[in-house]
Amino acid sequence: MPSPAKSPATITSRDNRWLKLFRMALRGGLPTESNSVGVEGLRLVEEALTSGCQIEAVLFSESGERHRAKLAPLISRPEIAIPILTTTDRLFEGIADTEHPQGVAALVAPRPAQLEDLFSTPAGQCSPLIVVLAGVQDPGNVGTILRTAAAFGATGAVTSATGQSGSASPFSPKALRASAGAALHIPLVQGAALGILLTQFKLNNISTIATCVHDDNPTHSLAAPWEIDWCQPIALLVGNEGAGLPEDVVHSADARIHIPLERRVESLNAAAAAAVLFYESFRQRHKST
Amino acid sequence: MPSPAKSPATITSRDNRWLKLFRMALRGGLPTESNSVGVEGLRLVEEALTSGCQIEAVLFSESGERHRAKLAPLISRPEIAIPILTTTDRLFEGIADTEHPQGVAALVAPRPAQLEDLFSTPAGQCSPLIVVLAGVQDPGNVGTILRTAAAFGATGAVTSATGQSGSASPFSPKALRASAGAALHIPLVQGAALGILLTQFKLNNISTIATCVHDDNPTHSLAAPWEIDWCQPIALLVGNEGAGLPEDVVHSADARIHIPLERRVESLNAAAAAAVLFYESFRQRHKST
Repeated sequence: MPSPAKSPATITSRDNRWLKLFRMALRGGLPTESNSVGVEGLRLVEEALTSGCQIEAVLFSESGERHRAKLAPLISRPEIAIPILTTTDRLFEGIADTEHPQGVAALVAPRPAQLEDLFSTPAGQCSPLIVVLAGVQDPGNVGTILRTAAAFGATGAVTSATGQSGSASPFSPKALRASAGAALHIPLVQGAALGILLTQFKLNNISTIATCVHDDNPTHSLAAPWEIDWCQPIALLVGNEGAGLPEDVVHSADARIHIPLERRVESLNAAAAAAVLFYESFRQRHKST
Repeated sequence: MPSPAKSPATITSRDNRWLKLFRMALRGGLPTESNSVGVEGLRLVEEALTSGCQIEAVLFSESGERHRAKLAPLISRPEIAIPILTTTDRLFEGIADTEHPQGVAALVAPRPAQLEDLFSTPAGQCSPLIVVLAGVQDPGNVGTILRTAAAFGATGAVTSATGQSGSASPFSPKALRASAGAALHIPLVQGAALGILLTQFKLNNISTIATCVHDDNPTHSLAAPWEIDWCQPIALLVGNEGAGLPEDVVHSADARIHIPLERRVESLNAAAAAAVLFYESFRQRHKST
């Protein structure tokens, strides 16, 4: 591994080991051997550098060098030794996942969280508010939901597969872009088994709230968002874009929630629905009266 | 104009007058001479047919004929005589604005609303709730905001230009897709001058609420969404995606609203922000306590 030189090492061959790692993480969307993921663009690299996650390397292209001054206070701290690399614009384009890359990228190792970490109440919050993505397949939706959850003060997140579908990785380049880096900040557990998860919530006195897109199932009573007490410890379960949550999960949850709409023909997309629910929790947790 | 034949007229030449009209409306995104706009796809055509707006023509491709049965109750009513046309898949692809067209499209004349129409309280509502799009440039955002507004019971909408930017047409194919046809249902006034609009709201005792993306302007006090009384007559002013509302508009509004977020680095996209605000108005207007 190159030492953190003051003048960065310039990469001129596409066979360079670092470039291969960046290409796999960004264009390939796969974690590196050391479990780092790729982030690209000034804003996401900034988020990575301030997340407290370990940074494996930062890469600038020639034209990306213009962002260097802005990032300097974050990358030249003496207590951290981050390899800073540069390459040509052409080689950068070859590893980037975006069409018009900004010329700055980083490899960052997300901080693994344990399920138990999510059960305690962080400072400044009245109780845990955990979002569970159960079979949310679109990486953009996964990212947007995490971003919205973090913005409104969710204290943790879990991705989980249902019998029908898995959830998209929150650390793919597309999901990271949509989350604006929130996935690096919020304590996040990946790939928990849904059954174990529900049992753990019950054992830890965390109420499970199932989100229901349709209100046509007469066997359940559905609560409006404002009818839920969001100040209690809550795990909000969000299901697949098309199929929703599995019926048995809806059934076993402590409550079922539905956003009532004026025109029945309408529906909200996943991002807007998440914004509404997390807003409601935020409102209840923050309103003075 | 062809008569509404039982067996539809089949168009085989790309120079056909109807095809040219559809091409201009769908691919060109421009209204026809008779001010009709183009909608494409089963769901949007259905919305158009149930909107009460005048339908100029419905066009099926060969493979689109499979949607015919579903639409039959809407297009074969004796009291309306809609020209029903068919064409080949190849010619339909030439007029469609989407990559994989569903093979059904319609020309529909949006119902023009007058500003005064928006000032009265529709049945079932406590008071008018008008959304004003002032310089919202992205057609997708215009559509999504209208869809969300309609879903949560907004009673009317206005598009307006600011000194800096115009608002995208709510009737372009992209905006209509994003609005899921809501633009055809909600009373909508296009292109009102912002100054006249604000005066008219004042004269009609409609409170103007300016949405503020940033909370860094110390000269204004900003209300959280739940601090606004949404049961009064309200015009919610939504500004440009980047620049927001012009400063003088923010200043002269009756109140300024800001969605507070836990992490200052975060922001909500236009659709999520609109969902939160319209949800809050819906909550207040519907909650029993």
